[in-house]
Amino acid sequence: MEPFDLVVQNGTLVTAGETVRADIGIRGEQIAALGQGLRGRETLDAGGLLVLPGGVDPHVHLEMPAGAVRSSDDFVTGSIAAACGGTTTLLDFVEPEPGETLAQALQARRAQAEGRAVVDFGLHMTLTDTRPPALAEVEPLVAAGVSSFKVYTTYDGFRLDDAGLYAALEAVGQAGGLVMVHAENDVIVGQARRALLAAGRTGPQAHPLSRPAAAEGEAVERMLALAETAQAPVYIVHTSTRRGAEAIARARGRGQVAYGETCPQYLVLTEAEYARPGFEGAKFVCSPPLRSEADRVALWRALANGQLQSVGTDHCPFFYRGAKELGRELFTLIPGGIPGIEARLALLYTWGVRAGWISPGRWVELCSTAPARLFGLYPRKGSLLPGADADLVLFDPQRRVTLRQEMLHENVDYTPYEGLELHGYPVATLRRGQLLAREGEYVGPQGGGRFLACGRPQAA
Amino acid sequence: MEPFDLVVQNGTLVTAGETVRADIGIRGEQIAALGQGLRGRETLDAGGLLVLPGGVDPHVHLEMPAGAVRSSDDFVTGSIAAACGGTTTLLDFVEPEPGETLAQALQARRAQAEGRAVVDFGLHMTLTDTRPPALAEVEPLVAAGVSSFKVYTTYDGFRLDDAGLYAALEAVGQAGGLVMVHAENDVIVGQARRALLAAGRTGPQAHPLSRPAAAEGEAVERMLALAETAQAPVYIVHTSTRRGAEAIARARGRGQVAYGETCPQYLVLTEAEYARPGFEGAKFVCSPPLRSEADRVALWRALANGQLQSVGTDHCPFFYRGAKELGRELFTLIPGGIPGIEARLALLYTWGVRAGWISPGRWVELCSTAPARLFGLYPRKGSLLPGADADLVLFDPQRRVTLRQEMLHENVDYTPYEGLELHGYPVATLRRGQLLAREGEYVGPQGGGRFLACGRPQAA
Amino acid sequence: MEPFDLVVQNGTLVTAGETVRADIGIRGEQIAALGQGLRGRETLDAGGLLVLPGGVDPHVHLEMPAGAVRSSDDFVTGSIAAACGGTTTLLDFVEPEPGETLAQALQARRAQAEGRAVVDFGLHMTLTDTRPPALAEVEPLVAAGVSSFKVYTTYDGFRLDDAGLYAALEAVGQAGGLVMVHAENDVIVGQARRALLAAGRTGPQAHPLSRPAAAEGEAVERMLALAETAQAPVYIVHTSTRRGAEAIARARGRGQVAYGETCPQYLVLTEAEYARPGFEGAKFVCSPPLRSEADRVALWRALANGQLQSVGTDHCPFFYRGAKELGRELFTLIPGGIPGIEARLALLYTWGVRAGWISPGRWVELCSTAPARLFGLYPRKGSLLPGADADLVLFDPQRRVTLRQEMLHENVDYTPYEGLELHGYPVATLRRGQLLAREGEYVGPQGGGRFLACGRPQAA
Amino acid sequence: MEPFDLVVQNGTLVTAGETVRADIGIRGEQIAALGQGLRGRETLDAGGLLVLPGGVDPHVHLEMPAGAVRSSDDFVTGSIAAACGGTTTLLDFVEPEPGETLAQALQARRAQAEGRAVVDFGLHMTLTDTRPPALAEVEPLVAAGVSSFKVYTTYDGFRLDDAGLYAALEAVGQAGGLVMVHAENDVIVGQARRALLAAGRTGPQAHPLSRPAAAEGEAVERMLALAETAQAPVYIVHTSTRRGAEAIARARGRGQVAYGETCPQYLVLTEAEYARPGFEGAKFVCSPPLRSEADRVALWRALANGQLQSVGTDHCPFFYRGAKELGRELFTLIPGGIPGIEARLALLYTWGVRAGWISPGRWVELCSTAPARLFGLYPRKGSLLPGADADLVLFDPQRRVTLRQEMLHENVDYTPYEGLELHGYPVATLRRGQLLAREGEYVGPQGGGRFLACGRPQAA
Repeated sequence: MEPFDLVVQNGTLVTAGETVRADIGIRGEQIAALGQGLRGRETLDAGGLLVLPGGVDPHVHLEMPAGAVRSSDDFVTGSIAAACGGTTTLLDFVEPEPGETLAQALQARRAQAEGRAVVDFGLHMTLTDTRPPALAEVEPLVAAGVSSFKVYTTYDGFRLDDAGLYAALEAVGQAGGLVMVHAENDVIVGQARRALLAAGRTGPQAHPLSRPAAAEGEAVERMLALAETAQAPVYIVHTSTRRGAEAIARARGRGQVAYGETCPQYLVLTEAEYARPGFEGAKFVCSPPLRSEADRVALWRALANGQLQSVGTDHCPFFYRGAKELGRELFTLIPGGIPGIEARLALLYTWGVRAGWISPGRWVELCSTAPARLFGLYPRKGSLLPGADADLVLFDPQRRVTLRQEMLHENVDYTPYEGLELHGYPVATLRRGQLLAREGEYVGPQGGGRFLACGRPQAA
Repeated sequence: MEPFDLVVQNGTLVTAGETVRADIGIRGEQIAALGQGLRGRETLDAGGLLVLPGGVDPHVHLEMPAGAVRSSDDFVTGSIAAACGGTTTLLDFVEPEPGETLAQALQARRAQAEGRAVVDFGLHMTLTDTRPPALAEVEPLVAAGVSSFKVYTTYDGFRLDDAGLYAALEAVGQAGGLVMVHAENDVIVGQARRALLAAGRTGPQAHPLSRPAAAEGEAVERMLALAETAQAPVYIVHTSTRRGAEAIARARGRGQVAYGETCPQYLVLTEAEYARPGFEGAKFVCSPPLRSEADRVALWRALANGQLQSVGTDHCPFFYRGAKELGRELFTLIPGGIPGIEARLALLYTWGVRAGWISPGRWVELCSTAPARLFGLYPRKGSLLPGADADLVLFDPQRRVTLRQEMLHENVDYTPYEGLELHGYPVATLRRGQLLAREGEYVGPQGGGRFLACGRPQAA
Repeated sequence: MEPFDLVVQNGTLVTAGETVRADIGIRGEQIAALGQGLRGRETLDAGGLLVLPGGVDPHVHLEMPAGAVRSSDDFVTGSIAAACGGTTTLLDFVEPEPGETLAQALQARRAQAEGRAVVDFGLHMTLTDTRPPALAEVEPLVAAGVSSFKVYTTYDGFRLDDAGLYAALEAVGQAGGLVMVHAENDVIVGQARRALLAAGRTGPQAHPLSRPAAAEGEAVERMLALAETAQAPVYIVHTSTRRGAEAIARARGRGQVAYGETCPQYLVLTEAEYARPGFEGAKFVCSPPLRSEADRVALWRALANGQLQSVGTDHCPFFYRGAKELGRELFTLIPGGIPGIEARLALLYTWGVRAGWISPGRWVELCSTAPARLFGLYPRKGSLLPGADADLVLFDPQRRVTLRQEMLHENVDYTPYEGLELHGYPVATLRRGQLLAREGEYVGPQGGGRFLACGRPQAA
Repeated sequence: MEPFDLVVQNGTLVTAGETVRADIGIRGEQIAALGQGLRGRETLDAGGLLVLPGGVDPHVHLEMPAGAVRSSDDFVTGSIAAACGGTTTLLDFVEPEPGETLAQALQARRAQAEGRAVVDFGLHMTLTDTRPPALAEVEPLVAAGVSSFKVYTTYDGFRLDDAGLYAALEAVGQAGGLVMVHAENDVIVGQARRALLAAGRTGPQAHPLSRPAAAEGEAVERMLALAETAQAPVYIVHTSTRRGAEAIARARGRGQVAYGETCPQYLVLTEAEYARPGFEGAKFVCSPPLRSEADRVALWRALANGQLQSVGTDHCPFFYRGAKELGRELFTLIPGGIPGIEARLALLYTWGVRAGWISPGRWVELCSTAPARLFGLYPRKGSLLPGADADLVLFDPQRRVTLRQEMLHENVDYTPYEGLELHGYPVATLRRGQLLAREGEYVGPQGGGRFLACGRPQAA
């Protein structure tokens, strides 16, 4: 047998289900073999390190328009930050503009990313129009590799009513795709917001009160009932409450194909952040908002017990200076979203694995394999087995790091995780066999990330 | 002390909470005293009988328009049937027509009943318009004795969207009233129906499939979440599924003021009835439909454990010949509704008390005291204590009766309970001290029922 | 009709299920009539006051031996305290000594109380021996008016193993009686205690840790499963945890006849009390211990939702000086038990009714009617209906009182409720028509309390 | 690189978490590499087949004494049957006799298996004595590779009381081992049995009634509470009821380290089998008994949702003729146990994977990887990654087989699964690189199975 192009030696491989000592032999862009004593023209020593399939972040928003501003990371900066943090596949969104066909919007968005992103990427399609012409595009899109469709129960211009949600579920389900949903009851949010403003509560402290847990609980239940009727699989994004997680568990308990995602911010931070003095709380304004400590613990339980299946970042950064500040007078004008694309793996290792909530295998499953499966990228992504893309992360479980905005590559002037102590951090990232990041610095070429055709959701 | 006008002697009084042997002394239209050895100018012997406060049926539809037909009992026949079955208070609905104010509609509906009904009656107001002019009428209506407002999540012409439901909850809650809701998800029902028709399933056998449990579960959850946000009490009518009952229990478990009603048909019959040969199943077409045996048992558990609080009949009769038959070719054209106003007390005694699910006190609570309380009629109705109206039922717990349509006074050509064996039946009914029914026959005068001003919902 | 001996006028009667304005006419020792404008040779004005059936405390320990000491209230002082607080029926325990038959022990205990207690009393029999000769006494005891039998899953000399528990359930169930259980897993408690002592934790701060929630949860589950198999009703005393309450709710949800009691201390206080400086925490040492705030809230929810059915005090006072102090060096030597016989009604009114957890009717049900029913004393006790004993409490819902040990009549040098602000307090107590207490002072004769023959448990 | 000794080519590898096409290269007894186009001195074509890690059956009873008889498969016949069915690792039990030390008993049992078993095996130690000398052996046993200790809550001679259970949990937990428990409440079983015999119910039809679900529910709860207190991991064997599974889920939900096993018989058969005419029901007598259809469905839900973690067979065969017949007059004399060692993989594929309850990956996890992990054999067993033993199963997912006793290798005259239609069956089994079975026939050498030192339980 010919020597491999590259062998990653002596590492401890961690997959969704297994942890073993073995070498990885890479040929070209793929993993060609696992074995002991593999020989390569080049080698990378992973002694003492964990070797993982590259992270798959199923939920990011790069250069996304949001009113007067757009999210501050573009495909260049965002994907470099991802790579430095150990994420080698991003799933971002297409948001068609009025008048555009879905295919046109996909074309435009794909063009925006191609040649600029340094990691591979797939695209979810946002559905805001569920009339027949739009839904007729679903099947060809699935064939073209866009198999996940995002719907909203809130936000003007995005919100679908029950009939629209059902139509989306039916069309996407029949085409073999997956509906993702941002689930918050629009009327509950609107009324809560109105009551706060009427009471003169205009600061960021009011933000969590404006989106109560009942809003999420209700919308998750509704979406699950509609999906049950349409016999379509459904994926609840950014589940933030015990109530939402319990609704998903009940649906799964009656045999429904339903998946729940949560995010690092709901697993590490709580609504206590909004009580920071002055306008500081704006740094934590995202929707759904950070929740109670009881919710935070319940989400970890749900991840540990298999009741939630995926962790995405919902990365959507806005500069505090200039952007978040647009809401100084009125919290509802604060651009909603926080950064997180870079620290996901490390946050979940410290707060999840070290804290005893989850095993290393479950960590890899939640951050890589499960998202790869659910969006039909597995086994090309999310796997260390032969034939998979050689997307690898070398992770030092002993490295101690104090998180600082300065060390991150995200294009934004703060991190909501400032000052947190991490125990474990990525030290190298390979994308299809090529070294992208090393010791926290980007060392790869410009661009090179490819568009990924996503397939049907696969069960674990 | 003067002798009483009438003394009911030697009975076993059963109230919502208590069971004792005592006489009841009546002066004029009220209960004036409870005691032993009371003397009256007239006496009624209740030896060996249970003496209950007259039944309060919170949910009936008399002479209600339904497309080409109207429900076949009018205020005369329906109230006589009620009286013969031991119910002395009816709560029916006002359904404003387009262009009518709520006050006008109330006026018209009240006029329809007054002088014709033989038992006292209150009226719920149906809200199909939640724009400011309509909602401005809520407060004066509550002041005028219409304190309960019914909303629908389904049916064209009735269905409110979330914003409408919220507006109704807020307006009614602030006015001190109670929102009642028919909770079935309209889109789920519509899609299920469409799929059945597409599959050529046009007979009454398809009816239960057209309104799946998920439709009720979803709509109950939604309404509860909206009511929680509006901080308004809410009353779920005709809960028919375990899923609906569990949603109500969860809401109550988090401290919400929520009430659930179920009906005799869901407690005694199951969806097996729809499998009857030919068109016979049409006799059981009501919405929500009869459910599974597991649901039936779960509803009894919920009544026994306090998770449901009220039993109404949703009495809405249509002749099998001529009316139900309109749907011979298409089940969706079958007028939805079944009779039940007369047998409620007896059905619940045999199937609830004798079957060991509930005590006699709980039976009285569910059929009389709780509805009286929830619609603000207590202690005038629902009570045997001094000061209450002398609405009394003498109930023979040993009487054995085989239910036949012929023995009932409902104006309809069948009963869904045909042939059921009952053990216990009412033998006399008094309305405000006057004997209305005796041994299954109506012996009272024409008319005499009065409009009751309902008040705020009262907790048990 | 002859004038009554005494008429309580103008009060608002509150029963387990109803609240009305009416007079109460008393002849001799019984309530003879309820009505308006009743005439009596004597009258008691209850204008502005609530009139309740006298409290029934199902769980007290007067002059109970506990190692070197005995509980400091005897039948004289304890029953006077009860009367001043609005409780007119006590249920205490017989604890047979080795060699004694149950009948002998009953005789002795009854003699201790008779002529000394100022309120009526019943007796539970403690079963520590479940061999045939002892169980052969169960049926005659039930016939003689001792229908409730207490068993323990912990405490040397009291603890029964599964076979003993089952034998007790079977014998008592067949005799028509009710088994009460102190449910804490003995091994869990023993191990927790051992670990604490091994760690040098000898102060009262360690007490709650020595009896974890798991001990209660397990023992409640076990007892319920045994009772389910024996088809015997069961009553869980002093439920203190959410876990215990949920186990009871699950059993009731599957149709089992099971009842749960909790106590004011678990509804008002929390384990935070044990953190008091020095030895102060000893004042709160009882078993099970005070629990978390989350448990406290869960117990109120369970009472409000009908998942718990009864509130007793487990009154078992020991002087801080001299008695509690026996455990200064070792918390396991602190006599376990706290006073509470006098403040029960008032505590539950302020913390339950005023706090919005329960209605006045539910308050009366929990403190009087339900215990009367469950121990077969209803309708003689727990009722305001004619024929009931004229045990009445006049309760001023507006009275504001700061609880102080000095104002109580309990024979003990502290109250765990010191300094709590109450809004509502009893102002008069009648026992069988005779005034016992007035404005917080005992004004009745010596003795006069009678032994009550308890009957079968009755469902609400 | 040298050619491999053997290459399994073109198969679809299915691991606990992944499914990919790849070759497996074997050197000596281990998997040396995974890759494409691997070259070997010998090859085995797996085109169109699934390739799994060999099954690990965590729960078998070979040549186990049971009163007058012993289970009819010895280590020879039982292990050959296992191999033919795709199981390459067995975990059986040591049952020390009175007077024997645990080490002696282990020695004797190991000698019985060594040289006779054709597949590798580990041993659980049964703990019936929890006094200090016995528990002092736990730590050395764990060091010697016996890390799992079985306790019973029922059966004379085996049953431990709470103190014994706790002592076992504490000792085993501290030694890093795992306690397994047969959880049925002994008193409930005893009472139920007594009542049946008293009622003259002596046939096998009475068997399921003699071991009600409450017995399992109670004992599981108890064991979990004790383990929670001892902070020791615990493994519930042969969970057969929804109630048991829910108790495990609740414990896991509060963060406890608890695992649940169920068995094919509870997933495929129901208590309806006991109603077979005559004595036929005896073929299904095992403890716990087969359960209701609702339980069966609930167990699949629990496996699918991760609430149960392992599937063992509890294989314990007795000839119908001669052995089961010992209980012809009295069901309690029927030797308890049924065969199943051979059909496990195939039954779970048809009834689990094809029925849509679980994915192929979950099937492998439940039947191989999870048991390997939980008993510390992973990654030597349960894995396809390099370094693992080359225990492989080639499974044809398209093969259709009607199960017949004649085709099985179990030494017993019936199979409870007679006549079931299977879709998918193993076609070859390798143990450490050596072909043992091919097309349903044993083709391997005599003996050759090795004793496996088990280690600490590992989380997934």
